[in-house]
Amino acid sequence: MMEFRFKDALPVLRRTPHVLRELLRDLPDVWINVTEGDGTWSPFDVIGHLIHGERTDWMPRVEHILTHGEAVAFPSFDREAMFTASKGRTLNELLDTFERLRIESLERLKALSLTDDDLTRRGRHPEFGVVTMGQHLATWVAHDLGHTSQIVRVMARQYTDAVGPWRAYLSILNSGRR
Amino acid sequence: MMEFRFKDALPVLRRTPHVLRELLRDLPDVWINVTEGDGTWSPFDVIGHLIHGERTDWMPRVEHILTHGEAVAFPSFDREAMFTASKGRTLNELLDTFERLRIESLERLKALSLTDDDLTRRGRHPEFGVVTMGQHLATWVAHDLGHTSQIVRVMARQYTDAVGPWRAYLSILNSGRR
Repeated sequence: MMEFRFKDALPVLRRTPHVLRELLRDLPDVWINVTEGDGTWSPFDVIGHLIHGERTDWMPRVEHILTHGEAVAFPSFDREAMFTASKGRTLNELLDTFERLRIESLERLKALSLTDDDLTRRGRHPEFGVVTMGQHLATWVAHDLGHTSQIVRVMARQYTDAVGPWRAYLSILNSGRR
Repeated sequence: MMEFRFKDALPVLRRTPHVLRELLRDLPDVWINVTEGDGTWSPFDVIGHLIHGERTDWMPRVEHILTHGEAVAFPSFDREAMFTASKGRTLNELLDTFERLRIESLERLKALSLTDDDLTRRGRHPEFGVVTMGQHLATWVAHDLGHTSQIVRVMARQYTDAVGPWRAYLSILNSGRR
């Protein structure tokens, strides 16, 4: 287990748009809109969700903590806003938007010159109650990685039948939806 | 669910080395050698495993099917060969090796000029018995995606404690090892 440290976390946050671009840009459409079944998200949906996070969650909540501490709870986050916001856009457009917004987020973070001492600052989550800046920032990293894993899993599962007996060796095809 | 088709699958196979390079190259060492606990693999281990697959599994078994059909079983694959083979190498070296070998694999595949009709050709797996070329090739794709997901998951889980109460929302931190 690791503690959150800016020097470890920032390189991961910087890379996410590049990883997703290498994975998805200009990929045959057949991979982009598939899901794991009703109520689950496609790679296209996930990129829209990441964009909404840049706009309303990650840096806005950092700034909220700095302004309000634990006195005022964060506005809640709409996990499904992308179903409206992404309509009519192409995946390549969404990838570009996410990359641009992530660069801006990290510039805003850098401009705050936070240090490891700021990680203990307290904020208030609408459900969890008191949380820390460090927990919020670690969540940003884990959330990026979680949704990267999700996209890759959604793609892999399109071949659950195609792999035949090898399914037994491919745990990505067998675990529950996550 | 999708059937295996060369036109869908080749773009995914081509991208894997680039995705892993964007994710891991020059990343702080703290992410590279972490695991999910005893007996599980680090990102470094996974790249070594992918290299061993290029050398002994994917194209060698394609060629084995073309030569022997179902008359001769595939040699078995050593899932843990990388623990010896990767010793003393850096992650960046392994990423370069994997990329070079993947390019070579796809050139060998292209040179065979296989068509969708060849996907029904039969081979013999040492445990499963009769398998098809299409199943083997679909497994190549799903295996790439599975190990990409694994690397990302291993990284995310280093922050299982650091995220505090957000763990409840981050399913990547909560499912069983896969």
